[in-house]
Amino acid sequence: MQNYDELVYRGTSFTLNALNSKIIESLETSVSTIVVKNLQMIQLQKAILAIGMFSLFDSILQDGLSCRNGFEGAKKTLIKIGKIELNDRFDNFICAINVLKHGQGRSYNTLVSKYKLLPFRINCQERISLMKVMSQKFLH
Amino acid sequence: MQNYDELVYRGTSFTLNALNSKIIESLETSVSTIVVKNLQMIQLQKAILAIGMFSLFDSILQDGLSCRNGFEGAKKTLIKIGKIELNDRFDNFICAINVLKHGQGRSYNTLVSKYKLLPFRINCQERISLMKVMSQKFLH
Repeated sequence: MQNYDELVYRGTSFTLNALNSKIIESLETSVSTIVVKNLQMIQLQKAILAIGMFSLFDSILQDGLSCRNGFEGAKKTLIKIGKIELNDRFDNFICAINVLKHGQGRSYNTLVSKYKLLPFRINCQERISLMKVMSQKFLH
Repeated sequence: MQNYDELVYRGTSFTLNALNSKIIESLETSVSTIVVKNLQMIQLQKAILAIGMFSLFDSILQDGLSCRNGFEGAKKTLIKIGKIELNDRFDNFICAINVLKHGQGRSYNTLVSKYKLLPFRINCQERISLMKVMSQKFLH
């Protein structure tokens, strides 16, 4: 797709700006159930955007590499051409999206085991809900 | 996740309102490359939101039904309890999301074959790009 990267980058910036201005607007009012629900709603929208971008990226990789699992296909190629660091970084983001989608599990444990090396923050407390991961840690 | 449906519904309404107001704002100015790019960007954001919602819904089904393919699990259950019409309607939206992700292909052909019965519009012209499907047909 022509200019996909540029469109995704600009589109995400625009949407995040709109959502963030809504957060600020909400925080300027008194704390109430509606404000809390608005904040949850906005954080969920951010998570959905991140998941959607990754899912569309997966389908573009599938079509481009003619394979059923776009991420696996891309990772194989990265390893083949010696881009190990980029492959590891890619892995971290695949795990992060999995945590947004499923909450605690294998991906979450993988990220917690190397939380000091990650390019984003992760909550390492034992009890954590999907909503909490969504709303506080990966997308801000 | 508590209040997931409500949060998704409210969140999507909010984001779509913000994006639609941007469309109107763009159309009030003269047509130029920047305006066209803005419109493409906004339509891509809508597609990404739809894909993201569906992907998150899939993961919720996976976790809830303890299966690897949430949509297949849900469809089996719907057929088992005799909800054939709901299953067919669900199928249409699964195909629509596939078209958003992959463009023309099996899902697109399925939808074209029954375009008169669909709850949304689809472009039945022979030559159609993913971007065109994204920007004009499913999300408006």
